[in-house]
Amino acid sequence: MRRAGWSSRDVVRHRGGVGGAPVSDDVAVEEPLEIRVSGEPVAVTMRTPGDDSRLAVGFLFAEGLLRSIDDVGSVSHCGRPGDEGYGNVLDVIPAAGLSLDIERTTRGTLTTSACGVCGRRSVEDLLALCGVVPEGPAVDAALVASAPERLRSVQPLFSRTGGVHAAAAFDAQGQLLASYEDVGRHNAVDKVVGALVYAGKVRSARAPGYRRVPEAERPALLAISGRASFEILQKAAVARIGVVVSVSAASSLAIDVAQRAGITLATFSRGGDFNLHTHPSRLR
Amino acid sequence: MRRAGWSSRDVVRHRGGVGGAPVSDDVAVEEPLEIRVSGEPVAVTMRTPGDDSRLAVGFLFAEGLLRSIDDVGSVSHCGRPGDEGYGNVLDVIPAAGLSLDIERTTRGTLTTSACGVCGRRSVEDLLALCGVVPEGPAVDAALVASAPERLRSVQPLFSRTGGVHAAAAFDAQGQLLASYEDVGRHNAVDKVVGALVYAGKVRSARAPGYRRVPEAERPALLAISGRASFEILQKAAVARIGVVVSVSAASSLAIDVAQRAGITLATFSRGGDFNLHTHPSRLR
Repeated sequence: MRRAGWSSRDVVRHRGGVGGAPVSDDVAVEEPLEIRVSGEPVAVTMRTPGDDSRLAVGFLFAEGLLRSIDDVGSVSHCGRPGDEGYGNVLDVIPAAGLSLDIERTTRGTLTTSACGVCGRRSVEDLLALCGVVPEGPAVDAALVASAPERLRSVQPLFSRTGGVHAAAAFDAQGQLLASYEDVGRHNAVDKVVGALVYAGKVRSARAPGYRRVPEAERPALLAISGRASFEILQKAAVARIGVVVSVSAASSLAIDVAQRAGITLATFSRGGDFNLHTHPSRLR
Repeated sequence: MRRAGWSSRDVVRHRGGVGGAPVSDDVAVEEPLEIRVSGEPVAVTMRTPGDDSRLAVGFLFAEGLLRSIDDVGSVSHCGRPGDEGYGNVLDVIPAAGLSLDIERTTRGTLTTSACGVCGRRSVEDLLALCGVVPEGPAVDAALVASAPERLRSVQPLFSRTGGVHAAAAFDAQGQLLASYEDVGRHNAVDKVVGALVYAGKVRSARAPGYRRVPEAERPALLAISGRASFEILQKAAVARIGVVVSVSAASSLAIDVAQRAGITLATFSRGGDFNLHTHPSRLR
């Protein structure tokens, strides 16, 4: 179910200290989505409705619960059209014979083994889950420099509302593979990764009968409209995307993940310039 | 324990297609913080270290678990200095004789009663917790217009890194009460609210022996550097701050919360102009 991501609300524009008459304004829609696995609630995220199945599959893939689209039996909204909140609860049923360890996710956000969470351990846990991103094809530095501009060209909801983030994946030749907008940065990335999982272009090396996706079809670069934080790099690492480009700054932990996970991280990509933090060897 | 919010990493600046020599760059620190209540994990957030006790108290207040600073017995980091991850786990012990219903928070994010979370119900739940923000003193429209500029003047970490959000509270006379920066928008607001709870300027009407904080001391306006989402308005509603001003857009649900909770919401406050969405009566 693809739903419009915007809605209208009245607003009064104050210009030069004077308020005008109310006018209708388009704003980005924000609604809760509860993601369930076999009926068990796993997470609630505030998201822009639309492409929920991609969001859920991308989220569960990044959490290490799904290894490929073969692990998915069905994805469907609970309840009946017309029920209040219909469309905001999504149930993911694993493929026949498979059960997903959802404890890992709910446990991960709520408890830790000892008295001392820390960034270093977060990075170690991530690497234990997904390993280092393998060497892949070099990406043209011009793609890194132009990614935000190309991202901007696939942001119709931002143009209308000014209130959403965006993420996009490109292959090594600079072909756009997927792009999504959402009120949440993480959701936009989950939708992109989910679309790539659905398309078979992203698979975990832990998937049974794993076959390497042909290099030309694989995502090589992830572009995001905002800042690069730990969680964005985590999602890129699990999806094995070798280059991450952000329009704004990176946090310390994002840089540390990129360094350890073998990801080339570029930030402040604006007007053809960018800052390169890690693994320059992937750039041409 | 106040810690520096920035750290240095090497970076190569690519300008006009050419990369220079590596230089040292300051980036915002991102580290996990686990918030515990009486030893029980309640939440993990990725935050900029420093002012953790304010962050934890503000978070627990917004969740409806703490009603005033009188509910807090002690707040301390677990473990010993020198342990790995020391400083990233904070334990909040309630005042003697009080036990906090942390089930409410962990339950709230993980399960819902029926098949159908939705924005309307999220707003209803919030109003059941905190009620409508009472009428308060009118705020000068000039304060709404100048809030982002004043916020910008208390963002030393942003000036250094370009990678953090900020939030600030002002009283009705325009006096700055508290301001904080953080890699997370929500964390910045939690730190501001937590500081106000510590200072006794924010108390819940449900607090035993509730006495109204004198009007002149109360926070009247919350300014944030980014976008206004549901959770930001939720925190303002629980803290009973009547005016919220954001530099960027609001989501549909943020506007709907503001409308129902009696909050005056202004967005896109830039260069002296702003958009006013709800409750104009609070502006002078």
